[in-house]
Amino acid sequence: MAPLGEKSLIERIRRRVRAGSAVVNGIGDDSAVLRVPAGHELLVTTDFTLENVHFRRQWHPPEVVGWRCLTRGLSDIAAMGGEPRAAFLSLALDGRTPQKWVNGFFDGLLEAASEFGLPLAGGDTAQSAGGIQADIVVVGSVPNGKAVLRSGARTADGVYVTGELGGSAAALAQLHTGKARPADYPRHFHPVARIAVGQWLQRRGLASGMIDISDGLSTDLEHICEESGVGAEIAGAAIPRARVGHRAQQVGLDLALHGGEDYELLFTSAKKIPAQVAGVPVTRIGRITRKRRMVLTEDDGARRTLEVRGWEHFKGN
Amino acid sequence: MAPLGEKSLIERIRRRVRAGSAVVNGIGDDSAVLRVPAGHELLVTTDFTLENVHFRRQWHPPEVVGWRCLTRGLSDIAAMGGEPRAAFLSLALDGRTPQKWVNGFFDGLLEAASEFGLPLAGGDTAQSAGGIQADIVVVGSVPNGKAVLRSGARTADGVYVTGELGGSAAALAQLHTGKARPADYPRHFHPVARIAVGQWLQRRGLASGMIDISDGLSTDLEHICEESGVGAEIAGAAIPRARVGHRAQQVGLDLALHGGEDYELLFTSAKKIPAQVAGVPVTRIGRITRKRRMVLTEDDGARRTLEVRGWEHFKGN
Repeated sequence: MAPLGEKSLIERIRRRVRAGSAVVNGIGDDSAVLRVPAGHELLVTTDFTLENVHFRRQWHPPEVVGWRCLTRGLSDIAAMGGEPRAAFLSLALDGRTPQKWVNGFFDGLLEAASEFGLPLAGGDTAQSAGGIQADIVVVGSVPNGKAVLRSGARTADGVYVTGELGGSAAALAQLHTGKARPADYPRHFHPVARIAVGQWLQRRGLASGMIDISDGLSTDLEHICEESGVGAEIAGAAIPRARVGHRAQQVGLDLALHGGEDYELLFTSAKKIPAQVAGVPVTRIGRITRKRRMVLTEDDGARRTLEVRGWEHFKGN
Repeated sequence: MAPLGEKSLIERIRRRVRAGSAVVNGIGDDSAVLRVPAGHELLVTTDFTLENVHFRRQWHPPEVVGWRCLTRGLSDIAAMGGEPRAAFLSLALDGRTPQKWVNGFFDGLLEAASEFGLPLAGGDTAQSAGGIQADIVVVGSVPNGKAVLRSGARTADGVYVTGELGGSAAALAQLHTGKARPADYPRHFHPVARIAVGQWLQRRGLASGMIDISDGLSTDLEHICEESGVGAEIAGAAIPRARVGHRAQQVGLDLALHGGEDYELLFTSAKKIPAQVAGVPVTRIGRITRKRRMVLTEDDGARRTLEVRGWEHFKGN
């Protein structure tokens, strides 16, 4: 199959662009023109999806790569309590990218876009010098002054997470040694950005600090602690661990603590949060402390320092 | 020199970020938070800068790569008549990128940002699987309904260009065979986005259609003709050809017609435009026709079809 030329790629994108209320003028001009609701601030996030860094062609079907590519950006908007408004895709393909791959990639990306009513409003295309490189930009909005930052956590706030952790890293571990059926690892192959939960918390002013778990709980909790000038105490037993594989086995604590790309939300709150928000389970896993260190308490009451083992792509676990 | 880890790169970017009036919250959260002036629409553009596609390390000093990287985005905002508000950089580096290169790249990029009072407000960093990959996002604004599109050219409008053409392509031609001193090829090594000209035209409602010349006059004029449903007649002798090299020789007509990356503006207008706008020369090179074809008239009055020879990176001329 012939690789796509830049022009045919742009045409292809253009045909598949969905009109959206925020987009005044989309693909086909020097810039896209967007409208932001009055009284709203703008959110902008950009995220790379690079072949052999964020995905491997033999591991990830193109639909999965496209879906996850957009989800990375959506999840950042969710973590601010925002509403996604438009997406922009920069895509570089090398000479050996089959058209079928590109079609599958767009199917996945546009399926995720359609799930959130989001138009693909522009981007860039290029010939890559080797491998597939995508950069996704998601523009969102949030009422003035209402964005939930990482820096708002306060001493004695509870620490909460949505969903379950470690499922995505477990899939990668499995892929290193064999096959992983997408149905057995939904959070890796089909993560859904927690937009509704983020907005629910933002509208009620319930989250003092928030981040999405893209690098792993320990790393992302450290970001909140650093930006807020606080520490945290986490109960190992409270962390909701993903069930994966055809036997639905719970992942080990290490994967739940340090595994990345779950795209769940990690947030802090002075208030009690319901056990389910917008249909997604929410679990209290610990509390914010004045003392600026991170502590993990174990089942037997032992306390140890929670190490930050920032998850690195494909480096195993 | 050791390559930069992602974390130190983010720290480095953060230290160099300039506060800007549009940026409420910049690097260091899940998304940047921006404010757009009331009554303004938003402009968003993304552009790749890929090693061995858009630049070569042995040809382009890192400061030049950084400067040109941001200029690509700024030029798209200029072509809409907009005001740039914030920039976002996604940057992937491979293991053999020296810290000195990264520093130089940021020096160039931030120099261009500072020239236009633009903050670098966020982005992404990653380890690349090979080569340097950058994607620049520029967010701008324009009063509601005032963005100058490619689709507004009307029959009998004059066709205008800013500055001179072909200088950037001439530098590439020279680099293929030998050395090119940056001082001899300013439009290649140090192109300046025509923001002020674009805004001047937009405020006065003088430009009916506009695009920046990034792919070459013939290709970019075709974009205007296609989007506007018109044709054009260009006088070869009227095209301002760049003077390059230490003897300040005029480039050939082919480079001026088809050479890319000059980042000049190409626009159409029903009104007479001054010979100089915001300190930049403006030249009338032809007119828009009802008949949907592009014609080049030569010195002796001969007319031939203006071929679209979309300039391709590094393919020579």
